[in-house]
Amino acid sequence: MAEPSLLVVSAHAGDFVWRAGGAIAAAAMRGERATVVCLSYGERGESASQWLAGRTLEEIKQTRRDEAAAAAAALGADIEFLDLGDYPLIESPEAVQRLVDVMRRVQPTVVLTHPLADPYNGDHPAAARMALQARVLAQAIGVANADGTYPGRDDIIGAPPVFFFEPHQPEQCNFKPNVLLDITDAFDRKKAAMECLPAQKHMWDYYTALAVRRGVQVKRNAGPNLGLPHETMGEAYMRYYPQVTSILD
Amino acid sequence: MAEPSLLVVSAHAGDFVWRAGGAIAAAAMRGERATVVCLSYGERGESASQWLAGRTLEEIKQTRRDEAAAAAAALGADIEFLDLGDYPLIESPEAVQRLVDVMRRVQPTVVLTHPLADPYNGDHPAAARMALQARVLAQAIGVANADGTYPGRDDIIGAPPVFFFEPHQPEQCNFKPNVLLDITDAFDRKKAAMECLPAQKHMWDYYTALAVRRGVQVKRNAGPNLGLPHETMGEAYMRYYPQVTSILD
Amino acid sequence: MAEPSLLVVSAHAGDFVWRAGGAIAAAAMRGERATVVCLSYGERGESASQWLAGRTLEEIKQTRRDEAAAAAAALGADIEFLDLGDYPLIESPEAVQRLVDVMRRVQPTVVLTHPLADPYNGDHPAAARMALQARVLAQAIGVANADGTYPGRDDIIGAPPVFFFEPHQPEQCNFKPNVLLDITDAFDRKKAAMECLPAQKHMWDYYTALAVRRGVQVKRNAGPNLGLPHETMGEAYMRYYPQVTSILD
Amino acid sequence: MAEPSLLVVSAHAGDFVWRAGGAIAAAAMRGERATVVCLSYGERGESASQWLAGRTLEEIKQTRRDEAAAAAAALGADIEFLDLGDYPLIESPEAVQRLVDVMRRVQPTVVLTHPLADPYNGDHPAAARMALQARVLAQAIGVANADGTYPGRDDIIGAPPVFFFEPHQPEQCNFKPNVLLDITDAFDRKKAAMECLPAQKHMWDYYTALAVRRGVQVKRNAGPNLGLPHETMGEAYMRYYPQVTSILD
Amino acid sequence: MAEPSLLVVSAHAGDFVWRAGGAIAAAAMRGERATVVCLSYGERGESASQWLAGRTLEEIKQTRRDEAAAAAAALGADIEFLDLGDYPLIESPEAVQRLVDVMRRVQPTVVLTHPLADPYNGDHPAAARMALQARVLAQAIGVANADGTYPGRDDIIGAPPVFFFEPHQPEQCNFKPNVLLDITDAFDRKKAAMECLPAQKHMWDYYTALAVRRGVQVKRNAGPNLGLPHETMGEAYMRYYPQVTSILD
Amino acid sequence: MAEPSLLVVSAHAGDFVWRAGGAIAAAAMRGERATVVCLSYGERGESASQWLAGRTLEEIKQTRRDEAAAAAAALGADIEFLDLGDYPLIESPEAVQRLVDVMRRVQPTVVLTHPLADPYNGDHPAAARMALQARVLAQAIGVANADGTYPGRDDIIGAPPVFFFEPHQPEQCNFKPNVLLDITDAFDRKKAAMECLPAQKHMWDYYTALAVRRGVQVKRNAGPNLGLPHETMGEAYMRYYPQVTSILD
Repeated sequence: MAEPSLLVVSAHAGDFVWRAGGAIAAAAMRGERATVVCLSYGERGESASQWLAGRTLEEIKQTRRDEAAAAAAALGADIEFLDLGDYPLIESPEAVQRLVDVMRRVQPTVVLTHPLADPYNGDHPAAARMALQARVLAQAIGVANADGTYPGRDDIIGAPPVFFFEPHQPEQCNFKPNVLLDITDAFDRKKAAMECLPAQKHMWDYYTALAVRRGVQVKRNAGPNLGLPHETMGEAYMRYYPQVTSILD
Repeated sequence: MAEPSLLVVSAHAGDFVWRAGGAIAAAAMRGERATVVCLSYGERGESASQWLAGRTLEEIKQTRRDEAAAAAAALGADIEFLDLGDYPLIESPEAVQRLVDVMRRVQPTVVLTHPLADPYNGDHPAAARMALQARVLAQAIGVANADGTYPGRDDIIGAPPVFFFEPHQPEQCNFKPNVLLDITDAFDRKKAAMECLPAQKHMWDYYTALAVRRGVQVKRNAGPNLGLPHETMGEAYMRYYPQVTSILD
Repeated sequence: MAEPSLLVVSAHAGDFVWRAGGAIAAAAMRGERATVVCLSYGERGESASQWLAGRTLEEIKQTRRDEAAAAAAALGADIEFLDLGDYPLIESPEAVQRLVDVMRRVQPTVVLTHPLADPYNGDHPAAARMALQARVLAQAIGVANADGTYPGRDDIIGAPPVFFFEPHQPEQCNFKPNVLLDITDAFDRKKAAMECLPAQKHMWDYYTALAVRRGVQVKRNAGPNLGLPHETMGEAYMRYYPQVTSILD
Repeated sequence: MAEPSLLVVSAHAGDFVWRAGGAIAAAAMRGERATVVCLSYGERGESASQWLAGRTLEEIKQTRRDEAAAAAAALGADIEFLDLGDYPLIESPEAVQRLVDVMRRVQPTVVLTHPLADPYNGDHPAAARMALQARVLAQAIGVANADGTYPGRDDIIGAPPVFFFEPHQPEQCNFKPNVLLDITDAFDRKKAAMECLPAQKHMWDYYTALAVRRGVQVKRNAGPNLGLPHETMGEAYMRYYPQVTSILD
Repeated sequence: MAEPSLLVVSAHAGDFVWRAGGAIAAAAMRGERATVVCLSYGERGESASQWLAGRTLEEIKQTRRDEAAAAAAALGADIEFLDLGDYPLIESPEAVQRLVDVMRRVQPTVVLTHPLADPYNGDHPAAARMALQARVLAQAIGVANADGTYPGRDDIIGAPPVFFFEPHQPEQCNFKPNVLLDITDAFDRKKAAMECLPAQKHMWDYYTALAVRRGVQVKRNAGPNLGLPHETMGEAYMRYYPQVTSILD
Repeated sequence: MAEPSLLVVSAHAGDFVWRAGGAIAAAAMRGERATVVCLSYGERGESASQWLAGRTLEEIKQTRRDEAAAAAAALGADIEFLDLGDYPLIESPEAVQRLVDVMRRVQPTVVLTHPLADPYNGDHPAAARMALQARVLAQAIGVANADGTYPGRDDIIGAPPVFFFEPHQPEQCNFKPNVLLDITDAFDRKKAAMECLPAQKHMWDYYTALAVRRGVQVKRNAGPNLGLPHETMGEAYMRYYPQVTSILD
C-alpha cells in the first residue's frame, strides 16, 4: 500500500487555496504529505489590483510567492514554484517533463488540478492538460527523467486518481461535481490560509459562502431533506477517471 | 450509522445476476443484507427460447421465478417479485408506491438499478425511473405508505447512493462507468448464480469474459500499465448522485 | 407590440420566491404584470418541518398557501394555485389544459419555470414538461379551451421565450446558465418575499449568498476582472429557445 | 457606456461575408463601428477554382484581398489582414499578441468569430481559439502590448460578448444557435457584399436561401405558427458566454 | 434475405412528404414496398390556415387525409391513418399495440420516424417513442398481437435500422445528421408529392432549398471542395442504432 | 469510381492489429489495397515488459518494428513507419505534411484512426488529430507537397470516410460505436496477426473475447433476440463524418 501523498497542480499561486484548501488541510491533518506545485504566480492575469497600484512584475511575483508560501504553510503543505509565466501559460514538453520529475519524486496517490474547460481563463485548462499528460508519462518506465536517466521500477508512479477542483464559474466550465468532500473539520485551516491573501479580502466571504453551499449539498446527498440546521462545510470535485473500489457506498 | 443494506431493483428476473451478481455476492460475503426486487419475470421479452419451445405464459413465469430465486440464494440475497408484467413494463403510481413501501421496509443504504437509457429494451429505463422516483418519495415524511398511514421519522429512508449497473450494449445506453468494482473474491458465487440459469448457458462465458474485461480496467485504473498478468475480475457501475466523502481517494 | 406579462409556473409554493423572486419583483417594479401559478403547495415533499411538528395535510396546505400569497404580494405578483398534489406531481392532459387556459388568459410574453432535469425532485421536471406542452398547445388555434370553445385569433398566445430558473443543485440538473439577470434594484423586494416564509429562515441567508454569487458573475461577464468591490446581486437563468433579436449585444 | 464597436475575427477572407454580413451591415447602418480582421486570405484552402485556373499564390492572395476589401466596404466595415497563412492556420503566441493589440485599439463591445469545432476545416477553430485567447489577455492590465509597453486602465478591454457565426455544416460543428438575428433590413447590403465575390457566384443563391431559412426560424420563435407569408431574413449565432441583462425577454 | 420494406411513422399527415419524401420515392422507384403510417392528421396543430378559414374539425381531417393520400400515391407508397388525435398526440399501450400489428404485417426492413426531441412540437417525439417501443415489442415472440393470438417465428420482425428524418429546426432538436441521402433522381417525385399539399405552397420552395442544401453536403462529404457546380439534391437522416455491415465505406 | 484503398493511421506499432485487424484483413481478402502508417513504434509507452527486461531503446524499436511488419504481412497490408517518437507523440506541421504526402500517394478511400479522446494515452488523440488535419490538407489543390511542388487535380484526395477504431477503455474515450463490422471470415487472419506479437500473449484472449462481444452486438442489431447460438465475430467503429449513400439500410 502506497504512502498517502496528495499533489495539487495549480496554474497560479492562490488557486489552490480557494479551490482545494479544505482537501489539502484535511490531508495534512491526517498526517499525510501534501504538495502544491504552482506553475506560475498569476503575476499578469490574476494580480490586477497590484498592477493598478503601480507595482512591477518582479514585485508582484515576489508578493504572490510569499503569500502562497504562507498559505501553504497554514494548510500544512509543501509548495514549489515552476515560474512558467502566465497569461498565457504556455504548454511545452519541457514544462511537462518538469512535472514528470515532480511526480516521480512526490509519488502522488491523489492528484488535484483544474478542470479541462474554462472560457474565462485559458491557463487553467493548460495546467490541467500538462498535469494529465505528465501523470501518464510518469507512469511509463520507458520515459526518461529530465536528466536523461531512466526510472527504475520503483521510481515510476502508479495510477493516482485525478480530481478537478471547482472553477470560479462552474457551470460555464462544464464542471459537474461527482464528489462532495466534507471539509467541516478542516475549514478553520482553510480560513487561515485564505487570510494569508490579504489583497483578496473580498474573496474570504465569497469562498466561505461557497463552502456553506457545498456543505448543504453534502448533507442533501447523504440523507433526507428534513430542513434541520447543520454546520457542514464542503468542497466540490469532479473525478476524471473511474473510481476503483471493492465496496459500493 | 445505518446498517448496510443493498437493494437491487431489476426490471426482469435474471438481470440482477448478469449485471450485479458480483456486488450482491460481495455484500452478502461481508455479512450485509442484500435484497433483490424483480419488477417482472421477463416472461414476454426475455424468454424467447421458452416461447419457441411452446411453453405457456404461466409456465414461463414460474420457471423464471424459480431460477431467479435459486440465483438469489446462490448470491446470498433475499428476493421479491412484484409481477408487474413486462414488454412493456408499465409505469404507474401504484407500482411506485409498492417500491416506496419496499424501500421503507428494507432501509437501503445502497440502491442498484438499470441506467436511464436503453434503445434495445424500454423496460430497463422504466424500472430505473420508478426506482429513482420511489427513492425520492420514500425520503419524504409527508408521503404516506400504501396503507394510508404516515411514516415516522425513523421509517423514512436516508439518501442512499444509486448505482446503475451495466447494460448489454453499454455505449448505446450512454453508460460511462465511473465506478469499477473489484469482484475477484465474489466471482465464484456469481458463477454459481449464473449456473442457476441453464437456459442461457451461452451467457455464462459471455459474462465471465466481461468480468475479465472490467477486471483489466480495475487494474489499469489502479496502477501503471506494466503488462503483468493478473486474475482481477470486475463489474462496472455508474454513480448517479455525487459521492459524499470525507477523504479523496 | 404585446403588453409585457410574466408568467411563472412553479411546482410548489415557495419555489418562485427563492428561484425567481428577483425577476418577478423587477417586472413588477417596471409596472408590468406578473403572475405565478403554483401547481401544488409542496405539502408532502417540501414541508418536512411541519410534518415533524405534527401538522395535518390540510393545515400544511393552508399555511403554505398563505405564505406563498404573502410572498407574491411582496413581489408585486398575482398568484394562482392549481392544487394538483405533489410527491408526486402527476402529469395529465387535464392539468395541461388548465395551464393552456391560464396562458390564454394571461397572454404571457415571458414564461419562467423549472429546468427539465432534477435528480432530487421529480415534480420539478414534471412541472416544466407540462408548462412547455401547454405553451405549445396554447399557440394553436385548433386546440380548444377547457370549456370546449375554440379560441379566436387574438386568444391564442404568441411564442413567449421560456427561461428555466435555478434549481437547488444546478450542476446535477444540467443547469448551465446562459442568462445572468441583474437584480440589484429588486433585491430588497426579494428579501421581503423570502421573509414571508418564516419556516425556512435558514434559507434567507442561503439565497442571499447565492444572489451575491450570481451577482459576481454578472460583473465578471460584463467587464474585466479588476477585483473592485461592488454590490451587484444576480439570478441565473437558462433560455430554452433561441433568443430572437435585431441587435447582437 | 462604451461606444458600440463590432469586431469580426475571420480565418479567411470571405468568411465574414457569408456568415456574418447581415450583422455587420446592421451595425454599420446603425452608425456603429465595425471591424473585420482576416487572419489569412484563404489562399490555399478556399481558392480551388483559382488554383485550377493556374493562378500563382501571390495572385490569389491579391485577388482575395481585393474582393474582401470591396465586400467590407459594401457592408460598411473596416478591414485588416494579418496574412498568417492558411491550410493550416498555425496558432502562435505572436499571432495572439497581434489580436490583443487589435482588440485594445478597436475596443470591441461585441466579438464575432467561428465556432470551436469544424471537422471540415481546422483553420476555423484555430481562429476561434486565438480570438478567444486574445480577448481574455486583452482584458488583463498585466499583459503587455506587442511593443512591450503596458496598457493603462482605459486601454484594456471590457468583457465583450462573443458570438459564433454559422459554419457551413452547422450540425457537424456542434453549432446549436441560441440567437437568431433579424437581418431583413440589412439584407440588401449583405447581397451587395456577396456580389463582390464573383468567383463564388453559386454561393449567392445558397446563402440567400439560408437567410430565408433562418428568417423562418426568427418568425417561428417570435410568434405562433399561423403559416402566414413573410419576408424575414435571418442569421444564426451561438452565444459563448452567458448573456448579462437587466430584463428577461 | 428479407424483402425490402420501408415503414414511415409520421405524427401528422404531411410530415412524411417534407421530411422523407425523397427516401420514400427512391424506395418505390427501386420497386420496393413503402408504407406510411400517420398517427394523426395534424388536424389541430398543423392546420392553422384552415381553422382561420372557419373549417370544422371533421372537414379539416378529411382534407388532410385526402391530401396525404394523394401525396403518398405520388411517391409510390401505401398509407394508413390511425387517427389518434393530435395536439397532444397521447401515448398509450393501445396505440403502441396497433403499431406492433402494423409492423408484424408490413415486416419493415427500414423504419423512418421523427427524432426524439422537438421543443416546438411534442407530438413528434411522442410518435418517435411509440414507434421505437413498438419496434422492440414486435420483435418479441412472447408479445401477443392485438387480437390476443401469439406470433409465430416468422411473424415477428427482425431488427430493422431506424432513421430519424429531419425536423423543422434541426439544431434545436439535437438532430445531428449522420446519413446524407442522395435523392437527386427521386426529387421530381418528391416535388409532385409536395404539390399535393396546396395549402402549404410557401413550403414548396422552402423544402426545395433544403434539398439543395443537403445536396451540397452530400457532395462535400463525398469529395474535395473544388467549388464545381452540381445538381445534387439530398435529405438528412440520423441513424439511431449502430450500422451493421461487412464492409467499411 | 476510385480503387478501394484502406489507410490506417496508428499512433504505435501494434494498435492496428488489436483494434482494426479484422477490417484490414477483410479488405485484403477482397483484394483491396491496405496500408498501415505507424507514427511511432510505441517504444517508450507501450513496451513496459521490454524495459523491465533491460532492453535498450533501439532494440525495442527494432523488435516492435519487426513484429508490426510481420503482423501487417499476416493481415495482407503494406506498412510504413514514420518514427516520430512516442510518449509523447508530438504534433508538428512537418509530421502532418508527411501524412499529406502519404495520403496523396495512397489515395485512401477509407481512413481508420484512433478516436479523439483518450484519458489514458495522449498519443492516440494526437495521432487522430494529425490524421484528420492531413486528410483535409491533402484535399486542397493549393497545399503543396513536402518537396514544394503543387499537386495536380488527380493528385489530391477525395473525401474518404473516417472511422475511429475501438480504444482500450471505450466508454472513457467517449467511443460510442455507430458501425459494427462483421469480421467472422477475417478473424483467422486477425488471430494470425495477433500471434505475431508474442510479448503480449495475454492480449490474444482478451481481443478474441472482445471480437465475440462485438459479434454478439452485430447479431443483436441485425435481428430479433431469439438467443440462438452463433459464431459471429465483430469490430466496433465510430464514423466521424456523415455517411453518404443513395440507399437507407
